[in-house]
Amino acid sequence: MTDKNQVLIYGRHAVMSALANPKRKIVRVMCLRENLNEVKGKIADSKIVAVERRELDKLVSADAVHQGFVALAEKLPNARIEDICDEAEKYENCRLLILDQVTDPQNIGAIVRSCAAFGSLAMIVQDKNSPQESGAMLKAAAGTYENMPICRVTNLSRAIEQLKKAGFWIVGMDGYAKTNIDKLDKNGRLAMVMGSEGKGMRRLIEESCDVTVRLPIAENVESLNVSTAAAVVLYELSRK
Amino acid sequence: MTDKNQVLIYGRHAVMSALANPKRKIVRVMCLRENLNEVKGKIADSKIVAVERRELDKLVSADAVHQGFVALAEKLPNARIEDICDEAEKYENCRLLILDQVTDPQNIGAIVRSCAAFGSLAMIVQDKNSPQESGAMLKAAAGTYENMPICRVTNLSRAIEQLKKAGFWIVGMDGYAKTNIDKLDKNGRLAMVMGSEGKGMRRLIEESCDVTVRLPIAENVESLNVSTAAAVVLYELSRK
Repeated sequence: MTDKNQVLIYGRHAVMSALANPKRKIVRVMCLRENLNEVKGKIADSKIVAVERRELDKLVSADAVHQGFVALAEKLPNARIEDICDEAEKYENCRLLILDQVTDPQNIGAIVRSCAAFGSLAMIVQDKNSPQESGAMLKAAAGTYENMPICRVTNLSRAIEQLKKAGFWIVGMDGYAKTNIDKLDKNGRLAMVMGSEGKGMRRLIEESCDVTVRLPIAENVESLNVSTAAAVVLYELSRK
Repeated sequence: MTDKNQVLIYGRHAVMSALANPKRKIVRVMCLRENLNEVKGKIADSKIVAVERRELDKLVSADAVHQGFVALAEKLPNARIEDICDEAEKYENCRLLILDQVTDPQNIGAIVRSCAAFGSLAMIVQDKNSPQESGAMLKAAAGTYENMPICRVTNLSRAIEQLKKAGFWIVGMDGYAKTNIDKLDKNGRLAMVMGSEGKGMRRLIEESCDVTVRLPIAENVESLNVSTAAAVVLYELSRK
């Protein structure tokens, strides 16, 4: 039903946020009759279809909680690294998040939500190893995906060099780093790099960081889930 | 296969941590032949069974990543609120987390992991509305469930009164609170209360809090996932 440029969005929050986003092209909204009033007026009537619950169940995967709302839409356009650098020039202090090898769509969606909550300018991922925009990702982002610039780059190392030229200080998160994150100078433009759970950042990416820092967790706990760690990092950087 | 006092644990980390926990009674470990060496010596040989991948697939639900390790075990005994209060007396400063109406097993597992990472003494939940220990919960806790005292109480309000008598200051997390969490006096014994996503704490529970505080999130973001919020709260309280 969806072609590769389309995404099936599900869940009340995700669908309603997509409808409120002028940049999001919606092909069709399918919802339960009882939800029609919530959707009407937000999009042309001709694009709204009232369907039975079992039809919605069939559209999405078995464990997907659609809450009676499903929309077929075009994926959002990719944010350009040049535009992100231009935007960053407006601020003396700003943050963005770079993900290296994070592959779980739900983690990525949850990280987008934390980016929005704690004021990250954008999120940057390597195109090749990062999952495409998907219903599960948008559900986990709880509506915040619509307004967070996501930049998929072919070469993450090159993107990091561009960010450095735009005045960003590149900070890698590494469980073995010597410096605690609360010792980090939080002034200026900071780009935080997070690797995958378990494997961490790739060596080449780690070497391109200006500094690496760690989160202070108990010695008998190996690591945090990457989306949990990202939330704590972004919170720490948002503190005055 | 499991009776109601048993749990099917899956995933390398969760299973290996259960094997390392003297309080955990293991009935049987089922693993792939290639994983036998990791398990041997950790438990009597008679309790180890080498099985094919498709047999493990059949034991756990379709989306459960077992990584070649499954164990049938007894659930851990419930921690007693009296013991938690006694333990707390040893510390001038300590924290614990109370969950009101949080029902998603994966969120609860992730919260246990954050409790362990950021030094919470225990976690307290209402027995009636909180899911039982399960494979999904233990997987999300990534091994940390084995050492975190979990206390299921019949009456959460009564438990809060007991904690107050033991010198705990009861702090409710509430998105509408006027005070930011970083203004909270972090000295002493703090019990943080978190409600379910969306609904928050029940009124009666909120009224029993000594104070309510909020996390500073962007105005256009409604809320955080409860496990994300718990991680940030526990991190903030762990800061010196």
